[in-house]
Amino acid sequence: MIDLMRFTKGHGTGNDFVILPDPDGQLELTPSLVARICDRRRGVGGDGVLRVVRAAKHPEAAGRAGEAEWFLDYWNSDGSLGDTCGNGLRVFVRYLIFAGLAAPGAAGLPIVTRAGVVRAVVRDGDVAVDLGRPRVYGDSAATVAARTLPGVAVVAGNPNLVCVVPPDVELSTLDLTRPPEYDPHVFPAGANVEFVTVAEPVDGADVHVRMRVYERGSAETMSCGSGACAVATVVLRDAGLDAGVVAVDVPGGRLTVTVDADSCWLGGPAVLVAHGEVDLASL
Amino acid sequence: MIDLMRFTKGHGTGNDFVILPDPDGQLELTPSLVARICDRRRGVGGDGVLRVVRAAKHPEAAGRAGEAEWFLDYWNSDGSLGDTCGNGLRVFVRYLIFAGLAAPGAAGLPIVTRAGVVRAVVRDGDVAVDLGRPRVYGDSAATVAARTLPGVAVVAGNPNLVCVVPPDVELSTLDLTRPPEYDPHVFPAGANVEFVTVAEPVDGADVHVRMRVYERGSAETMSCGSGACAVATVVLRDAGLDAGVVAVDVPGGRLTVTVDADSCWLGGPAVLVAHGEVDLASL
Repeated sequence: MIDLMRFTKGHGTGNDFVILPDPDGQLELTPSLVARICDRRRGVGGDGVLRVVRAAKHPEAAGRAGEAEWFLDYWNSDGSLGDTCGNGLRVFVRYLIFAGLAAPGAAGLPIVTRAGVVRAVVRDGDVAVDLGRPRVYGDSAATVAARTLPGVAVVAGNPNLVCVVPPDVELSTLDLTRPPEYDPHVFPAGANVEFVTVAEPVDGADVHVRMRVYERGSAETMSCGSGACAVATVVLRDAGLDAGVVAVDVPGGRLTVTVDADSCWLGGPAVLVAHGEVDLASL
Repeated sequence: MIDLMRFTKGHGTGNDFVILPDPDGQLELTPSLVARICDRRRGVGGDGVLRVVRAAKHPEAAGRAGEAEWFLDYWNSDGSLGDTCGNGLRVFVRYLIFAGLAAPGAAGLPIVTRAGVVRAVVRDGDVAVDLGRPRVYGDSAATVAARTLPGVAVVAGNPNLVCVVPPDVELSTLDLTRPPEYDPHVFPAGANVEFVTVAEPVDGADVHVRMRVYERGSAETMSCGSGACAVATVVLRDAGLDAGVVAVDVPGGRLTVTVDADSCWLGGPAVLVAHGEVDLASL
C-alpha cells in the first residue's frame, strides 16, 4: 500500500519543523504518527509538527474562527500536543504565505494557537510574532559544572531562568552537556535556562547579546523563542529601559526581540527547506 | 531564485541517508553543499549522501563501467568523500529498484563503490550486500567507565574492536556517552568499538547477539554494517564455526550477517521514507 502525506520542512534559527498542510482538517494525526514523522533517522525529522488547518475545521479552534482563519495545531516531537512555539509560529506563517493561503496585511495576520490568538507581521525575509510581554519575577540561580551563577526567574508563556554570566565566564565554554541545576521550589515544573553575555553594539538594537539555552526536558538547543523574549526583557531592565529592541544571537542565528508596554515581538528568519511526500507505510 | 534538487530520504536499521538521483552525473556536489543538505535542523538531515550516478558518467568509476552500471558516490555528512557504507549501499540498491533503474537478478546486482565492485541481492523486504570476509587480528581491550573489557581487533573494511561483554555486565547500562578508550598502538587510526552479548536462539541463525556500537570520530549510533560483520565473524569463531548465519540486533533493528569462506553478506531492511525537492537557495 502506498499512502503518501504531503509535507514541507522548515526552520527558524535552527528550530526545525515538519509542516503538514491540512486546510480542511482531514488528516488523522496520532501521537504515534507524529513521533514517527519527527524521528530524525527513521522519519522526516523535526522538533515538532505544525499542522496547517482552518480554525473553522478544527474542534479546538472553531470557536475563534471569527478572529483568525488559520489554526496552528502544534505537536511536540514526542507526539504530545503543544500550546504554541514562537519559532514554530514564525515558520507556520512563512508557509501560509508561501502556499498562498494568507497575505500579510498592514495590521498583521492573526493566528489561532492553543495559547490564544497571536498576531504575525512579515517584513522582507523575516517573520515576527507577538508572544506577549514576559513577566519578571525574583532573583534565583543556576549551577553549571559546580559553579553557581545568579539569575532571574521570568515567565514568557513558560518558565525561564535568565543568567547574565559574570565577565570571567566565557559563554562558549560553559558545559551544557548536562542539565543545569536550579531551585525546584521556584521552578516546580522545570525551566528553560538561558546564559547570556552582552556583545558589541549593532545597528537597530538597543542591546545586543549572545545566548545559549538549555531547554527543560530536552538539551541545549540551537534556538528558543520564549527564551529570547525572557532574555530581552531582563537585559533591557538591566540597561534601565522599560521598552526597546534587543538583538539576541543564538547558536542557530539572530533573533530580534522588540519589547513594548504590553507586547513582545519575536522576529527573525523563517525558512522553508524542502517539500515532498512521506510514505506513511514506511514509518 | 528557486533552485530545486530532487531527493529521497531512506534508512537501513536507523542509518539514514539523503539519496540524490543523478544518472548522468550533472549535479555539482561540493563538500559545503553536502554538509548543508545533511544538517539535521537547517537541511534535510542524514548520516550521508548517496549520489546515484551511472559508472560511465563519473570519472572515479568510468574505468569499471563494464562491470556494473551504477556507482555509489558516497559522501559523509561532514562533506568528506567516503569509500562505501554497508547500510548506505543497501539503501542505494533499494532506491535503484524503486526507481526502476535496476532489477535484482538471480546472480546479484553489481555496484561500483570506491572500495571496489560489491554485489547485492534483494529478497522480500531485505537487501543484502557482500562486504567481504573480515579479518580477525589479535586480542585487545576497551575501557568504558573505568572498567576494562577484553576484545578482539577485526578489520572489516575499517578497524573494529569487538568486545563480548562478561555475564555480569548489562549491555543496556554501559555508558557510551563518552568514547571508549583503547590501545592507540593497535588502532592508530581509531576503531569502531562494538559491545556484544549472546541472546536467545532465533530461527534461521546459528548465533543471535545484541550489539551496541560507538563509531570512531562520531558517537553511539543506531547501527553499523561493518561493525555487525566484525561481530558476526568473532561470535562464529567463539562458537567453533568457520561459517554461518548471525542475527545481530542493533538499536535500529535486526541485521542478518552470513559469513562464508570468502564473503560476508550484510542483510536487513532498507526503507525509503520520503521523496521531495530541496530548495538549494534556502540552505
